[in-house]
Amino acid sequence: MSERLRLKKNADRRLKAGHLWLYSNEIDIEATPLKGVEPGAQAIIEAASGKPLGVAYVNPHSLICARVVSRDANVRLDRSLLVHRFKQALALRQRLFNKPFYRLIHGEGDLLPGLIVDRFDDVLVVQLNTLGMEHLGDEIVAALDKVLSPRAIVFKNDSSGRRQEQLERQVEVVFGELPEQVLLEENGVRFVAPVIDGQKTGWFYDHRANRAWLNGLVAGKRVLDVFSYVGGWGVQAAAHGATEVLCIDSSAEALERVAENAALNGLAEQVAIGEGDAFEALAALKAEGEQFDVIVLDPPAFIKKRKDIPNGERAYSRLNREAMRLLGRDGLLLSASCSMHLATERLVECVRGAVRHQDRHGQVIYQGGQGSDHPVHPAIPETAYLKALGVRVFRD
Amino acid sequence: MSERLRLKKNADRRLKAGHLWLYSNEIDIEATPLKGVEPGAQAIIEAASGKPLGVAYVNPHSLICARVVSRDANVRLDRSLLVHRFKQALALRQRLFNKPFYRLIHGEGDLLPGLIVDRFDDVLVVQLNTLGMEHLGDEIVAALDKVLSPRAIVFKNDSSGRRQEQLERQVEVVFGELPEQVLLEENGVRFVAPVIDGQKTGWFYDHRANRAWLNGLVAGKRVLDVFSYVGGWGVQAAAHGATEVLCIDSSAEALERVAENAALNGLAEQVAIGEGDAFEALAALKAEGEQFDVIVLDPPAFIKKRKDIPNGERAYSRLNREAMRLLGRDGLLLSASCSMHLATERLVECVRGAVRHQDRHGQVIYQGGQGSDHPVHPAIPETAYLKALGVRVFRD
Repeated sequence: MSERLRLKKNADRRLKAGHLWLYSNEIDIEATPLKGVEPGAQAIIEAASGKPLGVAYVNPHSLICARVVSRDANVRLDRSLLVHRFKQALALRQRLFNKPFYRLIHGEGDLLPGLIVDRFDDVLVVQLNTLGMEHLGDEIVAALDKVLSPRAIVFKNDSSGRRQEQLERQVEVVFGELPEQVLLEENGVRFVAPVIDGQKTGWFYDHRANRAWLNGLVAGKRVLDVFSYVGGWGVQAAAHGATEVLCIDSSAEALERVAENAALNGLAEQVAIGEGDAFEALAALKAEGEQFDVIVLDPPAFIKKRKDIPNGERAYSRLNREAMRLLGRDGLLLSASCSMHLATERLVECVRGAVRHQDRHGQVIYQGGQGSDHPVHPAIPETAYLKALGVRVFRD
Repeated sequence: MSERLRLKKNADRRLKAGHLWLYSNEIDIEATPLKGVEPGAQAIIEAASGKPLGVAYVNPHSLICARVVSRDANVRLDRSLLVHRFKQALALRQRLFNKPFYRLIHGEGDLLPGLIVDRFDDVLVVQLNTLGMEHLGDEIVAALDKVLSPRAIVFKNDSSGRRQEQLERQVEVVFGELPEQVLLEENGVRFVAPVIDGQKTGWFYDHRANRAWLNGLVAGKRVLDVFSYVGGWGVQAAAHGATEVLCIDSSAEALERVAENAALNGLAEQVAIGEGDAFEALAALKAEGEQFDVIVLDPPAFIKKRKDIPNGERAYSRLNREAMRLLGRDGLLLSASCSMHLATERLVECVRGAVRHQDRHGQVIYQGGQGSDHPVHPAIPETAYLKALGVRVFRD
C-alpha cells in the first residue's frame, strides 16, 4: 500500500488510546495532502515521527476523514480480514443467543467502522454508512457468503450518515432471493421485519434486553406503546400477559405491521392501534380520561446533532410530562432515548421533572442500554447511544 | 409539631426538585437555630417565605442536617406512615420477585432516608444509618412486625455512616429469634447469609441482575472471582455450568462461607478458594501462568469520599490491568464498582486502559447497575452507586 497519511504532532493520542477516528484537522496536510488519497481508499496512518500506527480508510470530504480498520500497518481490510472479523463477531453472538436473530456487526464496536449487519436467520441486512465501506461492498457480500451462506443479502443503504459521506441511497437485494416474509424472534415472540421498506434494517434489536425486563412486569396490565413502530414493545407485552395494549405511531404502514405481528402470535384481540402524532395522541387520550398501568416511550432520536441538544431535551421533557399524566396510581414508565447526545443523567432529569410536575414520586428501578450484540467500543463513547429507564411512579 | 427549620432564600430549590436532603449551611439559623431542634427529632421545613415545604428529621451535628420524610407538613414519620411506606415498598418487590429474598427498603430510594432493610424470607436485617432513624428504631420494628410478621429482626448497625452521625455500633437481634442459619436464594442458587458477622446486612442483593447476566455466559468456562466475599458470583457461576471456579478473598471467614455455599448447592468440587490480598493473589496467579476465561472484579468501594477519587481511580485501573493479564484469548471481564463517586465513564476508562495496556481489543457488551430492589431516587444522584461492566476481551 503506497497511500499514507501523516498525523500532526500529538494528534496520535486518541488513536493510541484505542479510538478509531481521525479528523481532517489532525492530518499534516503539508506532508501528506488529504486530496492525494483516492476517496474510499485505504492508507497507512503515521505518527508525526513517521512511525506507522495502523491502516485506515479515507474520505477527504468527511469531517471524520479516516477510520482505522487495523492497528497493523502491514494488513489491509480485504475479504480475508472481513471473514476473520465476521467470524469473531459471530462467535460472540453465538455465545450470547441461541437463535440466529441479532445484530451481527455493530460498526466500530466490532472493529468495522461504518458497517452494520443485522441477521434475520438466513437473511442479512447490511448498511454501508461510509465511503470506505461502500468501496468494500462486493468483498463484504463475498465474506458474509463465506461465513454464513445466507439465502439473501439486502443493502439497506438509506442512512442519514451516508449523506454526509456524499453517498447515494441504495436499497436492494444484492445476493440471493428474499423470502416473501422475513421473520425474527425476540424474547420468545415472533415478528415480521420489513427489511426493505421499514426503518433502518427493519428491526431494532438494540432494545431486546430492555424489552425482556419490561416483559416481566406487564402481566394483567394495560399498556400504552408510544412510537410503537411495528410493535416491538407492545406485541411482546401482550405476549407476556398484558391484558390490553394500545400501540400509537404516526405511520399507518408501521401500524399495519403491528396488527400483522399481533395476529402472528395469536394476540389480535389484545393489541389495538392508533394512528397519529405522539403528542397529539397523548393529549387526546388525556382528554378522553384514559389511564394506563404501563407506558413505553421509545421515540426516534430527538437529538441528531450536538446543536439540537437544548431543543431535543425540551422534547424529551415534554414527552415524559405528557405521558406521566396518563399513568395510573402505581404506574410504570419505560422511558427510552436513542440519542447518543442525550446523557443518561439528562434523561433521568426529564423523568424527574415529569414526576414532580404531577406531584408524584418516582423510583428508577431499571437503567438499561443497548443489547450485547451492539458492543460499545471502550475508547469511543459515541458507540454507546441507547438508554432505557424503568420508573415506578406512585403517589405517597 | 412545634419544631421548625427555616431555609435561607433560594435554598428550597433542591427540595422543590424532589431532593430530600438539607445541608446545615442552607438553614436560616438566625430565624430558626439548628441547635434549637432536639437531635433526631422531626421538624417542619419552611421556605424563606415561611411556606411549609414538608417534614424532616434533624441532626444538627451532621453535614446533612435534615432529611425530608414527607412533603406534607401535617404528617410526621411515625408507625402508621412507616407501615404505609413498607407496604408500598413491599408491593414493588412482590411485583419484581417471586421469592422473599430482596432489599425491602433502600433508604432515600424508598422515601425513607437512612433506613435499609434486607429480607431473607422471615428474617429481616435492618440498618439505621442516621440519628433520625435511630430514634425511630422501636417504631420500625413494630411496623415491620405488622407488615411482615417476621420470625426475627436484626439490627446490623455498624455502618461507617453511623460514625458521621455520632452513633454507636449495635449488632443484635431485637425481635424474635434468629434461626441457626439464615438462607437466601438468588438466581436459583442457595446461600447462607452471615447476617450477624458478615459485611453490611450479610448479603449484597444489588448485583442480582448483573450476576444473572453473567450466569448465562459461564457454562464450560474457568472462572476467577476476585473479592469473592461469600461466593455470590463464583458459586452462582459454578451452578450455571462453569467447570472450575477460584474464589479469592482476604477474609478466611468469608472463604469458609464460600465452601459452605458451594457444598450447599452440591458444587464443592467445582469451587476452589484462595486466601490473600487481591493484588498479590493476581500477581501470584500470573507468575504461575494461570489463565481464566471469565474474571469477576467486585472490589469494596475504593472511593469512599470525593477526595479519594484520584487514588481510587488509580486502584481501579491497576486492578483491571492486573486482572487483564490473566484473561485467556477470548475472555470475559466483569468489572464492578460500588463507589458512588466513580462515574461509569471512568470505570469504562479503567477497562479501556487495561485492554490497551495488553494490546488487546475490548467490547463493552453489558452495562448494569443496581437491581430494581435498590431504587434510584431521580432527584438524588447519590442513590445510584453500583456499576457492572461486561467486557469481551480478545486479540484481533
